[in-house]
Amino acid sequence: MLWSGWGDPARARELPEQVRKLLHDLLGVRDPATPAATLDEVRLPPVALPAPLRAALAGVVGEAHVLTGHEDRVRHTRGKSTPDLLRMRAGDGSDAPDAVVLPGSHDEVAELLRLCSRERVAVVPFGGGTSVVGGLAPVGRAHGRARFAGVVALDLRRLDRLRSVDTESMIAEFEPGVRAPDAERLLAAHGLTLGHFPQSFEYATLGGFAAARSSGQASAGYGRFDDMVAGLTLATPAGDLELGRAPKSAAGPDLRQLVLGSEGAFGVITALRLRVRRAPAERRYEGWRFPTFAAGSAAARALAQEGPLPAVLRLSDETETMIGLADPGAIGSGGPGGCLMITGYEGARVEPRRTDASAVLARLGGEPLGEGPGQAWEHGRFSAPYLRDSLLAAGATVETLETAGFWANLPRLYDAVRLALLGALGSPLVLCHISHVYETGASLYFTVVVAQDGEPVAQWERAKEAVNAAVVEAGGTITHHHGVGRDHLEAYGREIGPVGVGILRAVKASVDPEGVLNPGVLIP
Amino acid sequence: MLWSGWGDPARARELPEQVRKLLHDLLGVRDPATPAATLDEVRLPPVALPAPLRAALAGVVGEAHVLTGHEDRVRHTRGKSTPDLLRMRAGDGSDAPDAVVLPGSHDEVAELLRLCSRERVAVVPFGGGTSVVGGLAPVGRAHGRARFAGVVALDLRRLDRLRSVDTESMIAEFEPGVRAPDAERLLAAHGLTLGHFPQSFEYATLGGFAAARSSGQASAGYGRFDDMVAGLTLATPAGDLELGRAPKSAAGPDLRQLVLGSEGAFGVITALRLRVRRAPAERRYEGWRFPTFAAGSAAARALAQEGPLPAVLRLSDETETMIGLADPGAIGSGGPGGCLMITGYEGARVEPRRTDASAVLARLGGEPLGEGPGQAWEHGRFSAPYLRDSLLAAGATVETLETAGFWANLPRLYDAVRLALLGALGSPLVLCHISHVYETGASLYFTVVVAQDGEPVAQWERAKEAVNAAVVEAGGTITHHHGVGRDHLEAYGREIGPVGVGILRAVKASVDPEGVLNPGVLIP
Repeated sequence: MLWSGWGDPARARELPEQVRKLLHDLLGVRDPATPAATLDEVRLPPVALPAPLRAALAGVVGEAHVLTGHEDRVRHTRGKSTPDLLRMRAGDGSDAPDAVVLPGSHDEVAELLRLCSRERVAVVPFGGGTSVVGGLAPVGRAHGRARFAGVVALDLRRLDRLRSVDTESMIAEFEPGVRAPDAERLLAAHGLTLGHFPQSFEYATLGGFAAARSSGQASAGYGRFDDMVAGLTLATPAGDLELGRAPKSAAGPDLRQLVLGSEGAFGVITALRLRVRRAPAERRYEGWRFPTFAAGSAAARALAQEGPLPAVLRLSDETETMIGLADPGAIGSGGPGGCLMITGYEGARVEPRRTDASAVLARLGGEPLGEGPGQAWEHGRFSAPYLRDSLLAAGATVETLETAGFWANLPRLYDAVRLALLGALGSPLVLCHISHVYETGASLYFTVVVAQDGEPVAQWERAKEAVNAAVVEAGGTITHHHGVGRDHLEAYGREIGPVGVGILRAVKASVDPEGVLNPGVLIP
Repeated sequence: MLWSGWGDPARARELPEQVRKLLHDLLGVRDPATPAATLDEVRLPPVALPAPLRAALAGVVGEAHVLTGHEDRVRHTRGKSTPDLLRMRAGDGSDAPDAVVLPGSHDEVAELLRLCSRERVAVVPFGGGTSVVGGLAPVGRAHGRARFAGVVALDLRRLDRLRSVDTESMIAEFEPGVRAPDAERLLAAHGLTLGHFPQSFEYATLGGFAAARSSGQASAGYGRFDDMVAGLTLATPAGDLELGRAPKSAAGPDLRQLVLGSEGAFGVITALRLRVRRAPAERRYEGWRFPTFAAGSAAARALAQEGPLPAVLRLSDETETMIGLADPGAIGSGGPGGCLMITGYEGARVEPRRTDASAVLARLGGEPLGEGPGQAWEHGRFSAPYLRDSLLAAGATVETLETAGFWANLPRLYDAVRLALLGALGSPLVLCHISHVYETGASLYFTVVVAQDGEPVAQWERAKEAVNAAVVEAGGTITHHHGVGRDHLEAYGREIGPVGVGILRAVKASVDPEGVLNPGVLIP
């Protein structure tokens, strides 16, 4: 993973000249005044961790698994939001942890948490490092870092095993540090799949999916990650929590759903028992064109409410369709106009579902575009973050944000977010798609492109603040799948209100009485 | 509702002579020595509530909505478990509340909670009164009643409105005191249904379904009640909690899932925004016979994992099939042997699903029995509790209990529960069915019939204790849909462990700092 950007540096792409010209003509984008910092140039704070504490950490995990080198610290500084990358490109490593600790077992995690709680060392659980909401920089500058004797990133990469597969219950037990592609590879040997493909797929870990309540591009078919968690083990400073004895239960509140989305603030997930599926025998992806976003939305809603629901269903608005972001390779190439819908079917018997769904789509005004657009989307489904790096280098800020709401409220939410972005950024390019549909509503996923001004981080933070306020005001949830982190904290507090905040704080105090776990994240 | 039993007294049935003979010959059941108490004979504790407190309650809801009459108190004493009924039949009303309070709005509920919290009055939220786990008798004899200035039942029957229907989002907003049949009637006017049909359907309320995390007989098709809750309002002594801005969210833990199953211990649900469906155009119920419970289980599992899943799917074990409890009208009439499966299809297009499911069932050893058994089951689906009253009167204790687990663990769970019952009760009749299936597991629902000894409550409590221990030991959840109440408290504590218990206590202290809400229920 590129330390200052996304993914494999070998896959970085130069922007085509056509796109550069478009950016310049349309948005006034100009090359940045200063080149990006090199790895060596990144400025890190001195390691604050006292030597006895470092020795104590090494006593738990072994000397080889406590890292304090420049590159290790840089690579565990923040996540992969655009402000994160802009800060890194500017050489700002001020949020770096003092050390990176790599436990090798549940017991080591539990012991580390007891030690760090006792010694008031802040602990940032670290999986794939792909947070885009500030979930990995809890106690940076001006965020109470002084309260702690140090900050360690708890990197779970050594907890990378598939522990067991139960093909009768269709449950696989994983350690949390398994990366999604490795999980799929390990399951494929059993003819199984999780079917969880978020855009962060190539780097994100299973533990991160659970902690951040992830959704994937095929969640309509395979369920969201929270649907997949049959059981889990959580290590906390107060002890272990072992949940999940049955698919569903009436034994009180579903505490699994309290751990899912807890973003490392309640504990460290050390085991996940996940519902798996048979690997699909067939897969088919197609494109449809709708005259308007409203018409396409109505068709998506019909499939969600009356069925059959494809495994993948997304609908780009007019602007996103025109720009062609659904197929980054074709950006700026125009296209047939209207709104592009991608439908993907996976499973043992694709054809009957496809036929039935196609009849619904055609009846509601859809024009079939065949497999071409579907395959193009599938081919580029994990590419957008690479494109972002190229745009950042070219002087354009590009960032995504998302929300969700009930169907009747979606148009209001859509307008509110766009207005907030226009108000804060002047004349950005704002693209949107419906990326996840449910019987009662859907999520809206926005991509924003704007010419960087002299202070691109502050420029984006103003926009983000305006959008957060607009989403809360318009009745949407502040995040459908990115999580709360630090960037959504204030809005989240308004979403759940003082009683909700009081509940979160009470739970936090119960499992993490010294408040060392990802402090500053999640809990308003 | 019969005060000392179940349902409409006009629908009570005498046991057929054939069944009486069977009970006598098989189980040694004899007529009870003492007749059941009349309503007037029920012994109640004196009303403990001081006059100024009563006046304060009346100041909130009006004098006409504070009830302290004998019958009102009796009708709010405990729920409808067999021990509850046995105690009532013995004239024991010692768990009665001091008063029944009937608020007419959310604001009145909120004000009552503030008042009761300030004055240390225990509050028992009361919907349909159908708890079978002690959920409505929190502070009875020897359960800390002395800590409180009084105990009031907060009967929600006046909060009985359908507030709005949003046919675009397919969400209906209800007040919590709406009974299930009324909810269906109100929705039918819009061509909609909830599709929630637990055995308590005729009396239970929507608020109760949510608070107790209910499952219905058609939950495979329409979802469990917790799946239906898009949003809710909870009144607590600490203020209101308003949840649900989108179908799903990554904004932290799903706090809806913390309120669902909270059994009145965290607050009073005053509004529910429920996902609704189009009323089914077609319905078809059928019977299948499998040679063994294992073969039938494998077939049920195949439908859950590979589809298509019927809306209703239940499988009786050999004993239940023989006794014919799936069709109470046919008890003791024998039948074709093996294990009876009921499949029910509901929706717009039943036939393709039925055809596909039938092919799976036939391939896995099922013999189709046609619509007869399906219709018989459907006809009698809410009748079993009436039958219980007749059996109690005849000197037999009959009670149900349930658990759930993952598929690979179900045989162990099945054996453990049966062994515990045999060990505790000598030679009871133990019937079982799989009542809810999921991809990863299923629930087991047991019916136990045994001749009453001289102390039938103590006799059952011994059995219940043995089963609770067996379920925890065998790795199942202590309850799939009955809830925790008081009867599962200790086992529930073992199920979630000390960290889980600590979380529940922390949440409780946050929303109900004086501990007046259903004290003694849910929180170990």
